[in-house]
Amino acid sequence: MPEKNDVLIGRKPAMNYVLACITLFHGGANEINVKARGRAISHAVDVVEIVRRRFLPDVKVKNIDVGTEQMPPNEERSTPTNVSTIEITLGK
Amino acid sequence: MPEKNDVLIGRKPAMNYVLACITLFHGGANEINVKARGRAISHAVDVVEIVRRRFLPDVKVKNIDVGTEQMPPNEERSTPTNVSTIEITLGK
Repeated sequence: MPEKNDVLIGRKPAMNYVLACITLFHGGANEINVKARGRAISHAVDVVEIVRRRFLPDVKVKNIDVGTEQMPPNEERSTPTNVSTIEITLGK
Repeated sequence: MPEKNDVLIGRKPAMNYVLACITLFHGGANEINVKARGRAISHAVDVVEIVRRRFLPDVKVKNIDVGTEQMPPNEERSTPTNVSTIEITLGK
């Protein structure tokens, strides 16, 4: 379930998510969580690096968690599969 | 420069790197560093999750660092580009 200060990384260009992060911080958030699954994990690290190096140098990486989620079977897969996850907490 | 207990994640199947990690721990290492750049970052998280969930449940994620490296121009790119990096430290 996405929380208020979560940014879920998908397949859009990195700048879309960078803007979402900046908007949350400018709107008063002190901490935000950048979350991704599977191949989007690399993309999440790109977003975090762009936010803190190019736009918000006072923002630090507070915590990084990795994990595994089980995805239920769907039209493409008849068995459940595991997918890796990452959650990067950014704070001022 | 790769250190002794580094596992550098590339494009091979995840199990190759999982085996490299297990071999280092069985050879007496107490800590190993799983490192990746760019798209291989997602793959590095997969490797770490497989190692600790399926093979070595006593191994914990001790630390995760993300960063940026500048890649020099080459035959495909005329300007330097930034690439994201990850370093995941696993320990018993």
